[in-house]
Amino acid sequence: MQIDKSNFSEWYNTITKDAELCDLRYGIKGFVVFMPWSVMTMNRMYSMMEQALEKKGHVPALFPALIPESYLTKESKHVEGFVPEVMWVTQAGSTDLEERCAMRPTSETAMYTMYSMWIHGLKDLPLKIYQRCQVWRYETKATKPFIRSREFYWIEAHDCFATEKDAMKQVREDMETSEEVLHQQYGIPFLFFKRPQWDKFPGAVNTFAADTLMPDGKALQLPSTHMLGQNFSKAFDVKYKDEKGNDEYVWQTCYGPAISRIYAALIAMHGDSNGLIIPFDLAPVQVVIVPIYRDDTKKAVLKECKKLQKKLSKDFTVKLDDSDNTPGFKFNQWEMKGVPIRLELGPRDLEKGQVVLVRRDTKEKSFVSLKSSELKKMILKTRDSILETLKSRADQWFSDKLSFADTMGELERKTESRGFIRVPFCTEELDGKPCAEVLKDKFQMNMRGSLFGTDTHPKDKKCIACGKDATVYLYAAHQY
Amino acid sequence: MQIDKSNFSEWYNTITKDAELCDLRYGIKGFVVFMPWSVMTMNRMYSMMEQALEKKGHVPALFPALIPESYLTKESKHVEGFVPEVMWVTQAGSTDLEERCAMRPTSETAMYTMYSMWIHGLKDLPLKIYQRCQVWRYETKATKPFIRSREFYWIEAHDCFATEKDAMKQVREDMETSEEVLHQQYGIPFLFFKRPQWDKFPGAVNTFAADTLMPDGKALQLPSTHMLGQNFSKAFDVKYKDEKGNDEYVWQTCYGPAISRIYAALIAMHGDSNGLIIPFDLAPVQVVIVPIYRDDTKKAVLKECKKLQKKLSKDFTVKLDDSDNTPGFKFNQWEMKGVPIRLELGPRDLEKGQVVLVRRDTKEKSFVSLKSSELKKMILKTRDSILETLKSRADQWFSDKLSFADTMGELERKTESRGFIRVPFCTEELDGKPCAEVLKDKFQMNMRGSLFGTDTHPKDKKCIACGKDATVYLYAAHQY
Repeated sequence: MQIDKSNFSEWYNTITKDAELCDLRYGIKGFVVFMPWSVMTMNRMYSMMEQALEKKGHVPALFPALIPESYLTKESKHVEGFVPEVMWVTQAGSTDLEERCAMRPTSETAMYTMYSMWIHGLKDLPLKIYQRCQVWRYETKATKPFIRSREFYWIEAHDCFATEKDAMKQVREDMETSEEVLHQQYGIPFLFFKRPQWDKFPGAVNTFAADTLMPDGKALQLPSTHMLGQNFSKAFDVKYKDEKGNDEYVWQTCYGPAISRIYAALIAMHGDSNGLIIPFDLAPVQVVIVPIYRDDTKKAVLKECKKLQKKLSKDFTVKLDDSDNTPGFKFNQWEMKGVPIRLELGPRDLEKGQVVLVRRDTKEKSFVSLKSSELKKMILKTRDSILETLKSRADQWFSDKLSFADTMGELERKTESRGFIRVPFCTEELDGKPCAEVLKDKFQMNMRGSLFGTDTHPKDKKCIACGKDATVYLYAAHQY
Repeated sequence: MQIDKSNFSEWYNTITKDAELCDLRYGIKGFVVFMPWSVMTMNRMYSMMEQALEKKGHVPALFPALIPESYLTKESKHVEGFVPEVMWVTQAGSTDLEERCAMRPTSETAMYTMYSMWIHGLKDLPLKIYQRCQVWRYETKATKPFIRSREFYWIEAHDCFATEKDAMKQVREDMETSEEVLHQQYGIPFLFFKRPQWDKFPGAVNTFAADTLMPDGKALQLPSTHMLGQNFSKAFDVKYKDEKGNDEYVWQTCYGPAISRIYAALIAMHGDSNGLIIPFDLAPVQVVIVPIYRDDTKKAVLKECKKLQKKLSKDFTVKLDDSDNTPGFKFNQWEMKGVPIRLELGPRDLEKGQVVLVRRDTKEKSFVSLKSSELKKMILKTRDSILETLKSRADQWFSDKLSFADTMGELERKTESRGFIRVPFCTEELDGKPCAEVLKDKFQMNMRGSLFGTDTHPKDKKCIACGKDATVYLYAAHQY
């Protein structure tokens, strides 16, 4: 099978259907059925992210999916941002509810109402709680499975601190967590941007967001972490008594890795014209065994394959494809599904006490002894090597997509190759919004923000749009 | 701390509050906030149950939380059973939805609509899919945290087969899974009843339900598995082509372990007057280290405790309580929270190279060498022994709660001690309902059903209520 990845949109639609990742035929527009092959990987992604969060002191909790309207409307900017997309529950059985309830679009208002009852003194801080859940936003933009749907799956971590400094440290920790999990474990490169003031999370002081690129060069927002300052703690009355007995509002952050969307980045970044390529630790099937036989050798080969499967299943997720399909069909099928390692076993291999190991990422073949210890060692080595290969491929491609433009002319020449283009800009404060709109109108490009943690102050440059002195380098990109 | 467990309702209310398992102050009636200490255990319970299901060939998927009204109303008995408790989404943003959507009370109608598109031939069967999710039922009965709330957390497995026999095999497999997980791993005893026809799942042919008992002797329904026959496959048009090319409706089962409710049974069954007792593998903290020191020994003891914590954390979840509270306070605190193993370490222990190990279930103390290998071995041994102790305690208590009555007089004398009382009954078919209502009116007892897999046919007995010839032994109990 060949699916041309240079037409990314078609590649994506084909692969999500052919590999049975999701089904779009459910009876509510924008609501997707996530099928086993994607859910098995997303569950592994969830586990890794949860482990990383717990290692850094987060604990899990579960808050209701419904939020009373009176909670949702307490922080004014937050309401403004979310209410247009909220789905409302108004009836139960045959009676109308006294107060309508929102299906949570995000959980600040549900959680901070409780936090105000849970936090009393310094001993209660820091409070670091996450929940694994789904949220609902009635998007008006076109939906695309995993990338944007009206129901999606994420983790949201909501933390409270005694000081602004501690909160800012948490923002940096969230960035590190993103690097550890998304980049190191999933192999997805990204840049962390500080969003311009006109594009921050409703209610936040500052939003920091990890943007990756899809194969068509358009930016996709992955986890974001928000410095909420005391905006919400004041609206929800989340206070603690300091050493002197004075009431102080807590400083808050929140962090939201959307697992279903990161899954989209995972398959888009690593896949090729033969289909998916899933990193070993995330694969629903890590090793597929394909027996090669004719009628006279079938019994002996299958017997050995079953032994092999049993042996390897102690350490790995192994599938033996003993269906009646031809080996060629099976190769294509499991390549398309992204299984990282294929083992082929035929009569001649049996004689030699070997198995053919084919890795999905490079298609390289090697002969490995059937001896358990050697085979296991080789699989583990290949596992690491696959992740390294995927990661360095992705990193290389990603860094090639970064360019610079100082003038509208330069920008125009570069906009066709997509990716992130750094431009000098007047200001990332609200005053800069009109200039951003110029770029949006002219090139359909959005200002993703300034690179966090790097010196982003241009010297002697002029804003690309208005020509005033530039105070900041911002990055422009087309976006999902 | 002492909480009298003989007043179970008070014990339960106290412990769920004091151990910070949940918070009932959320702004929607019947909606509970599940706090970290319970969620950490429920997550472990989820993992075990998911592993057991996957080992038996189930794969995970995720279906939308919302169900279009037109899906929900396709199977007439199912509608009748669930619609009175459904919460409805009618608006999105500021517009009314064309079709209102139910927040799923259970997912048959969402899943089987898709199954009808996924199943074509024998190669697609059996289909065994589960999802981990929450469901919403606007209960009119009084709610009680974990036991009955309007939002709860469960797994639902929905399976399709070519034959009735295969479906019945699945029902038995679900019972085995319940035994393996609930009884063997959580230590919760139960009986599997075939429910009388008047008390089955709306739309099912037969319902089989695991009932345990709470400390007050009232029955609590745990997982149930339903033989759906072809009722739903006919309503949802789920068909396959058999070998001859004929269209046949599939046979279906569904299985629904409600993790949040099983958690209630877990804490109720094992807890005592000092609070919770959590089996080691389910405990949020498995080992708590309590340092014992005076001012002059503090530094040395804490140093050793930190070393110990680091060492043990490789294999277990370990908490070092180095707060300023007194040892006595700490002992009470962690006993109340149900931490299975406490290690006490003081200056004299340090000298002797030992640690005091106290197990939560029996309060037994022992002295164990600080040598890593010995301590680890002892903790593992204690882990197994705690589960065995909890299980045999529970089993003993549970079997004592089983009794028999052949007449109304006998039943009346036995009803006070609660538990399951076996009575001869005219019939478990619909005709028996009036007799069940007699017992309900007279003793507030419900007929839980006949014991599945056992000979339940009485000889020469009369129905306890109507005096006709009894055809079946049914079990009566008060219930949650």
